[in-house]
Amino acid sequence: MAAAEDEVVLLSAWYSMFGMRVRIALEEKEVKYEYKEEDLANQSSLLLQLNPIHRKIPVLVHNGKPICESVIIVEYIDQIWKDKAPLLPSDPYDRAEARFWADFVHHKVYVPSIKIWTSKGDEQEVGKKNFIEGLKQLEEFLGNKEYFGGERFGFVDVSLITFYCWFYTYEKFGNFEIEAVCPKLIAWVKRCLQRESVSKTLPDGRKLYEVILESMKIADQK
Amino acid sequence: MAAAEDEVVLLSAWYSMFGMRVRIALEEKEVKYEYKEEDLANQSSLLLQLNPIHRKIPVLVHNGKPICESVIIVEYIDQIWKDKAPLLPSDPYDRAEARFWADFVHHKVYVPSIKIWTSKGDEQEVGKKNFIEGLKQLEEFLGNKEYFGGERFGFVDVSLITFYCWFYTYEKFGNFEIEAVCPKLIAWVKRCLQRESVSKTLPDGRKLYEVILESMKIADQK
Repeated sequence: MAAAEDEVVLLSAWYSMFGMRVRIALEEKEVKYEYKEEDLANQSSLLLQLNPIHRKIPVLVHNGKPICESVIIVEYIDQIWKDKAPLLPSDPYDRAEARFWADFVHHKVYVPSIKIWTSKGDEQEVGKKNFIEGLKQLEEFLGNKEYFGGERFGFVDVSLITFYCWFYTYEKFGNFEIEAVCPKLIAWVKRCLQRESVSKTLPDGRKLYEVILESMKIADQK
Repeated sequence: MAAAEDEVVLLSAWYSMFGMRVRIALEEKEVKYEYKEEDLANQSSLLLQLNPIHRKIPVLVHNGKPICESVIIVEYIDQIWKDKAPLLPSDPYDRAEARFWADFVHHKVYVPSIKIWTSKGDEQEVGKKNFIEGLKQLEEFLGNKEYFGGERFGFVDVSLITFYCWFYTYEKFGNFEIEAVCPKLIAWVKRCLQRESVSKTLPDGRKLYEVILESMKIADQK
């Protein structure tokens, strides 16, 4: 289904953990693509046209057809470019398990993470507690495996690793250290960072934190 | 991968639209299964053992192995019993589209629906507005097609139709009529109800409403 003349375009934002998932998947598959940075404060008409329902990045455009929602895009990429670096296991039970944990990352890592840097007081504490709890459950599932699916970098790894560049921001806002509570998870992060697909995709966590601080100052002045 | 001696057990609750999705999928595939009703106020040790992470129904147990989260279970069923009544399209783009709309049902129908019957005043109005908006977008996507995927009953239909038995509850609590705003969607509901898989799975909406009213009275007295 993949062809040499495939036209692949990704609309995303450099700080989006969801957009990074798609980039890592494309890099793993060695798919050439055009990257278009979106300004979410001023969405392009192209984005609104391609994702009129959610008006969100990332959007992958494959031969003119848009695909939305990061985990759905990653599954699509895995199916189209299936001969190289499979991300989902072929066994139906293992696939279901991988999907379960990718969904877990959304609800138990991403959702509470928002509270850590956008709220204060009790609300922030609840976010931090739930976020750490989520990471610990992931660490338990990881166990002594190299990657979440076993020996091969796969779907759950792609879903979670992109949060790493946000860890510094969570730590600074929430005043805690992730490695102290989840050392095995940080060892897994280091293994993932040895992959070019990951290291070239993830921006520097400190830079991201500074940009967020700056944008919050600007928002406060408005 | 499916075999005649397959042992299939479903843990669910009769009023759960998520559990009903699994039942419809199993009925479509003509899979024999054992049904275990869970009391969510007093979860069984079996449920906690099978879904220790979310402690939620539905859980499908296939030859002793648990699968959790309704859309993941439906995909699993579709993959295991693939020769009968395929639910997801085979084309990767169409599959991505079906997954997109199933995800839409969760975020734009289910999430706002909760507010309609569990809150009052402005919060309820926001829930109602968003719920109707979600249904209208689904109706637009449905267009003049027989089912969401075209001529064949499929993944998006399974994901949405189970909400129908809750419509009466939403209407009574929210004081509105869904057919008045989404006539095409109700025509689609009627088509779905002609399928035995659907009609034998969905409980009566009025009975469901009465049980909910009763349980709320009991909760108020506590």
